[in-house]
Amino acid sequence: MRPFVDTGGFQPDEIKRIEAMAISLGAEQFVHLNAVQRYYNACIRYLIYGNVLRNNTYPLSVSAERVFQALEIVEYANKMGAKSVAHGSTGAGNDQVRFDLAFQVLGKDLEIITPIRDKKLTRQEEVAYLQHHGIQLSWEKAQYSINQGLWGTSVGGKETLTSLLPLPEDAFPSPLKPGIEPRTLTLSFKKGELRAIDDQNYKPLAAIEELTKIARDYAIGRDMHVGDTIIGIKGRVGFEAGAPLIIIKAHHLLEKHTLTKWQQYWKEQLANWYGMLLHEGQYLEPVMRNIEGFLEDTQKEVTGEVTVRLYPYRFELHGIKSSNDLMQSRFGSYGEENKTWDSEEAKGFIKLLATPLKNYYSVHKPKKHD
Amino acid sequence: MRPFVDTGGFQPDEIKRIEAMAISLGAEQFVHLNAVQRYYNACIRYLIYGNVLRNNTYPLSVSAERVFQALEIVEYANKMGAKSVAHGSTGAGNDQVRFDLAFQVLGKDLEIITPIRDKKLTRQEEVAYLQHHGIQLSWEKAQYSINQGLWGTSVGGKETLTSLLPLPEDAFPSPLKPGIEPRTLTLSFKKGELRAIDDQNYKPLAAIEELTKIARDYAIGRDMHVGDTIIGIKGRVGFEAGAPLIIIKAHHLLEKHTLTKWQQYWKEQLANWYGMLLHEGQYLEPVMRNIEGFLEDTQKEVTGEVTVRLYPYRFELHGIKSSNDLMQSRFGSYGEENKTWDSEEAKGFIKLLATPLKNYYSVHKPKKHD
Amino acid sequence: MRPFVDTGGFQPDEIKRIEAMAISLGAEQFVHLNAVQRYYNACIRYLIYGNVLRNNTYPLSVSAERVFQALEIVEYANKMGAKSVAHGSTGAGNDQVRFDLAFQVLGKDLEIITPIRDKKLTRQEEVAYLQHHGIQLSWEKAQYSINQGLWGTSVGGKETLTSLLPLPEDAFPSPLKPGIEPRTLTLSFKKGELRAIDDQNYKPLAAIEELTKIARDYAIGRDMHVGDTIIGIKGRVGFEAGAPLIIIKAHHLLEKHTLTKWQQYWKEQLANWYGMLLHEGQYLEPVMRNIEGFLEDTQKEVTGEVTVRLYPYRFELHGIKSSNDLMQSRFGSYGEENKTWDSEEAKGFIKLLATPLKNYYSVHKPKKHD
Amino acid sequence: MRPFVDTGGFQPDEIKRIEAMAISLGAEQFVHLNAVQRYYNACIRYLIYGNVLRNNTYPLSVSAERVFQALEIVEYANKMGAKSVAHGSTGAGNDQVRFDLAFQVLGKDLEIITPIRDKKLTRQEEVAYLQHHGIQLSWEKAQYSINQGLWGTSVGGKETLTSLLPLPEDAFPSPLKPGIEPRTLTLSFKKGELRAIDDQNYKPLAAIEELTKIARDYAIGRDMHVGDTIIGIKGRVGFEAGAPLIIIKAHHLLEKHTLTKWQQYWKEQLANWYGMLLHEGQYLEPVMRNIEGFLEDTQKEVTGEVTVRLYPYRFELHGIKSSNDLMQSRFGSYGEENKTWDSEEAKGFIKLLATPLKNYYSVHKPKKHD
Repeated sequence: MRPFVDTGGFQPDEIKRIEAMAISLGAEQFVHLNAVQRYYNACIRYLIYGNVLRNNTYPLSVSAERVFQALEIVEYANKMGAKSVAHGSTGAGNDQVRFDLAFQVLGKDLEIITPIRDKKLTRQEEVAYLQHHGIQLSWEKAQYSINQGLWGTSVGGKETLTSLLPLPEDAFPSPLKPGIEPRTLTLSFKKGELRAIDDQNYKPLAAIEELTKIARDYAIGRDMHVGDTIIGIKGRVGFEAGAPLIIIKAHHLLEKHTLTKWQQYWKEQLANWYGMLLHEGQYLEPVMRNIEGFLEDTQKEVTGEVTVRLYPYRFELHGIKSSNDLMQSRFGSYGEENKTWDSEEAKGFIKLLATPLKNYYSVHKPKKHD
Repeated sequence: MRPFVDTGGFQPDEIKRIEAMAISLGAEQFVHLNAVQRYYNACIRYLIYGNVLRNNTYPLSVSAERVFQALEIVEYANKMGAKSVAHGSTGAGNDQVRFDLAFQVLGKDLEIITPIRDKKLTRQEEVAYLQHHGIQLSWEKAQYSINQGLWGTSVGGKETLTSLLPLPEDAFPSPLKPGIEPRTLTLSFKKGELRAIDDQNYKPLAAIEELTKIARDYAIGRDMHVGDTIIGIKGRVGFEAGAPLIIIKAHHLLEKHTLTKWQQYWKEQLANWYGMLLHEGQYLEPVMRNIEGFLEDTQKEVTGEVTVRLYPYRFELHGIKSSNDLMQSRFGSYGEENKTWDSEEAKGFIKLLATPLKNYYSVHKPKKHD
Repeated sequence: MRPFVDTGGFQPDEIKRIEAMAISLGAEQFVHLNAVQRYYNACIRYLIYGNVLRNNTYPLSVSAERVFQALEIVEYANKMGAKSVAHGSTGAGNDQVRFDLAFQVLGKDLEIITPIRDKKLTRQEEVAYLQHHGIQLSWEKAQYSINQGLWGTSVGGKETLTSLLPLPEDAFPSPLKPGIEPRTLTLSFKKGELRAIDDQNYKPLAAIEELTKIARDYAIGRDMHVGDTIIGIKGRVGFEAGAPLIIIKAHHLLEKHTLTKWQQYWKEQLANWYGMLLHEGQYLEPVMRNIEGFLEDTQKEVTGEVTVRLYPYRFELHGIKSSNDLMQSRFGSYGEENKTWDSEEAKGFIKLLATPLKNYYSVHKPKKHD
Repeated sequence: MRPFVDTGGFQPDEIKRIEAMAISLGAEQFVHLNAVQRYYNACIRYLIYGNVLRNNTYPLSVSAERVFQALEIVEYANKMGAKSVAHGSTGAGNDQVRFDLAFQVLGKDLEIITPIRDKKLTRQEEVAYLQHHGIQLSWEKAQYSINQGLWGTSVGGKETLTSLLPLPEDAFPSPLKPGIEPRTLTLSFKKGELRAIDDQNYKPLAAIEELTKIARDYAIGRDMHVGDTIIGIKGRVGFEAGAPLIIIKAHHLLEKHTLTKWQQYWKEQLANWYGMLLHEGQYLEPVMRNIEGFLEDTQKEVTGEVTVRLYPYRFELHGIKSSNDLMQSRFGSYGEENKTWDSEEAKGFIKLLATPLKNYYSVHKPKKHD
């Protein structure tokens, strides 16, 4: 039995090819578990609500989907009454933790079989094994470990094992489209979810898929994540995540206009933590459900349009339009005109604001830096 | 007496011109207070240590320097025994708070004179007044309020009074250099401070000035800050801050390699708060000194080289080299090879990691999202 | 029109007396607005969910109820089409901010009249005014400003104007009952709310009132709050809050058994912030609603019984009983017996846990303190 | 070789007895490593600076000292060129982590020998082994595991294996002194350290020892800690920590008077984290050194006297005296008299403070709770 969990990024013919490989490797049966919608509902939308970028950089392209692959598998195994479950993670990465953890916590007495970890197989040995079993796989191509999903593509290779080298341009699966022209998009959010691109309405999942296609031609969203792994060493991985980065930055801008300062502050605190625990395979930790509730609750007012301009390798945020915009000229304009208070009131404000410092410096001297 | 506080960004001839204007506006005397080095020592370096970007966007180009202008003025006024001090802020912005606060907290019975705030003068009236007093200033040019300093240039104009419109390209003081070629730079940091560009050593302040020149030709670091002002309304301002953004992002990457996860976490917490209080004119709050100490203490190991590649309007971080790099192959490589533990030990690790969740889900059912 | 907002702590005959005083002071009409249940629903229960003690000490006895008095008044004024509203706060305290803020934010063009603030009336002048208008009030008794409500009693007096002196025993409204014997109580919580004392079921509000009576005879919950006021100075106030302290500490203990480590961590972060903003009159800040949602969401599993023993002036928490208790012997016992892993697995766990530090200290030397 | 690390709480004759036992159990040599002063310098003083109570309850009486026992042992083993080191922790507690971690991180290829963990010995088997080897130990007395140190005494027993039962009074090593009278103490702090009790000056370490003796007769500081262990289960332990609790609460009160609101806020954040990592054996994590620097930096102004009154089983904080007290009558008194601003300035302050909420509620309706 070879269940395959689809968390996005696959074309139908690719799934056919994967099925054929599974059978030729000896699987009695191949099962395609489509988890894309669940993955969006239960995870990706919270990453959007929370503008989650691990270390201010990485949209958790792989870490998030591993968890949902693990959950689908363990639930399927439980349903089938399976006695054991296998995964192909090494003993040197985060994925083993994400898989084992879900299997141990939710599995009904599942034995976990991990040949690559146990036998310390190298990538070369893996490729040799596959070739031996009739899977045609060029070593050239297998040098880069590429993982494509709904929320971005990760790329590992010999450069990511160093601290110094960038990935070569052709390590990324799809190249910049030659001669592509800049383009302005209007992204419409409703309660924090992307619901339209220009004048076309979408369900949120379809909107991400559409934007992924658009962004791919611009080669937007390529970068390198360097981070602390669950197993305690530092790791480095390349990624391309055009749609995730555009969505998160556009959503973030809309929030700057529609949420208060402290809403933004606490969202950021909780969302960073959410991203960290998710990255570390702790999706099942109950505080995650509490944080999801908080994030969702803040999105009630995050509705409006964001204008974004795409260029090769980059994009600019131009502005927003929202009936919930808290920056409105009837309140006065920043720096220009105060419609709601007069000069004396502003002075009174500052006078009281200065009180704690006035008291402090009546007792202590200012510390000099130079 | 017209003291002029220099916090960077001025050419000698500009200062001459400012002096001439001051005299023609009736100042008896013009004093040039050079605060650039102090500004770097007492503030900018902490913004670098802390990778401070307000709302993940804005390097505090103006907010930071206002505080040091205010401090220089109040100290000068105290030294001269001045009875009053004037500033030109409106009643609708943050700057009035930054100035008044410093004057009230540290001033010796200084009267604060603020004609623009008290008479609610508009930008047009200000231009008219200046023209009337012989300052030649085209209204065309005066439409954009530009503030150039050590840590970036801010640009305000009719677009920044809206939520929707981007600034036009020519609102920025210096254009992209036509036909400029991509270029790779090596930035060397020593204990968190930028000390060399390629093979050229600099003092930190000179390094920033040099990098500013280099980045300017690429038009790097342009963006828009939307934020919550001290006076409670939302405000929007454009900026160009090439050197600050390159330095902060390069420095951040170096920290990912040289600091532990929790050092990075707490640095970010404290630095965000530092940026917020600084932005809000609370530089004198004593906790700022405590945070500065913390940030400085974390920098002991942030030494190494960062490779950056510049392109028109953008840059890429390529990698780092540091003897303090905690991502070293002798510890094993992430995802590939574990040199320090075996498969059974990894399993034991995950088993205990799973304990709290196993206990939890033996009492409670998993919450379903869909 | 003299509306009187009841946020608890009053006997029916006291309200009659207050009405009589209002009329004799010239009020045309007296309205009793009962806000106790609303105050519990919209505020107190979140203070329990969050174990909120300002500065680890003060249950916000007064600060919380002021906000609800202000809200009731402004809603009533809006309903009546009132043009102005008065309150008796001085210009040196937090209450003026709590009242003005609610009136300004929600009032429909209400003028705010504040004679005590405007005329800088002293407590002596207030007492004289009342005596002149036929209110019998001994200066002796009026020396202590006592505020009794659902969530505790505050006591201010000449000692609280100093940093050094404690309040005398007889400044508190009700004395320790002589010869009272220790007593053990069982408090039953359901989803975070107090629902029974010993075998007697209550609605949460009635449970608080009952426990207040019980605790009062023991003089439990007396302490002094020293804090930073909204207006920037430090302030000090005594209080007696027996029921709030017993409930919060018992609830907290139950949470230690039923919530995970990170649920407790983030609850504490958000609840402290909630307490701070509430204390500072910022109940209407939208983030407060988001935090309330988070806190409520965490309480689903906070159900069980807590045993508490009361003594004169103090109480002890003895233990808890809950079917959601995560400390259960079938998982093994802390320090004694591990039922779910073996010695080798524990060693593997610790080995990987040690990895980041091992790496760090292979590059750096330990810092010595002595 | 049997090194014995002294982290306080021992009388000379006890150490003699321990030596005798070690020899009779077969140790070739007994070494007394006095780590008390180092323990204070490198750890306890930061727990005081930070007012550290785990879960608002537990002063880390045992967790802190285990780390220093481990450090002393590993340094001694390295110095002696030892090849192995043994400890007596079970496989079900935190101590194995604290010891193993230090040994692994700092040890030079040390083998770690842990017979009790490996053989899963029970407390009964341990007692039997000791009796067999001539150590007279009554099982009655051995039922409670008591650990006495500089920073308090922990008590484990059959009750602490339940969630419900309190420890019996006689499980604590020293009883309340019959007929003891209440007593008022003046504790003098200098830069955050306890330096005098009443008129008697002490070095900080001696001051703690003296206060421990005083508090013991009052049976002050008894409570139960329920917490999440490093190994993932919940654990419960009783403790008596009179001096730590009095010192921390007195120090905290002094800080309320001498530090600003945000200094207190960030101290609490960092100190809670410090306590958590220390508790979990992560003393060597480099962020701990950064936090120590922060905490120490905040103590420059924490100088003054605190009056405390001791009663059987409890104490009250009466007040403080400090030349750094920020609550001083010349700034005006809270609630009574404002010396530095007038009524109009206070109104202006509140008006601007209300701006964000006014804007928000001009766009949105207030959310109703009931």
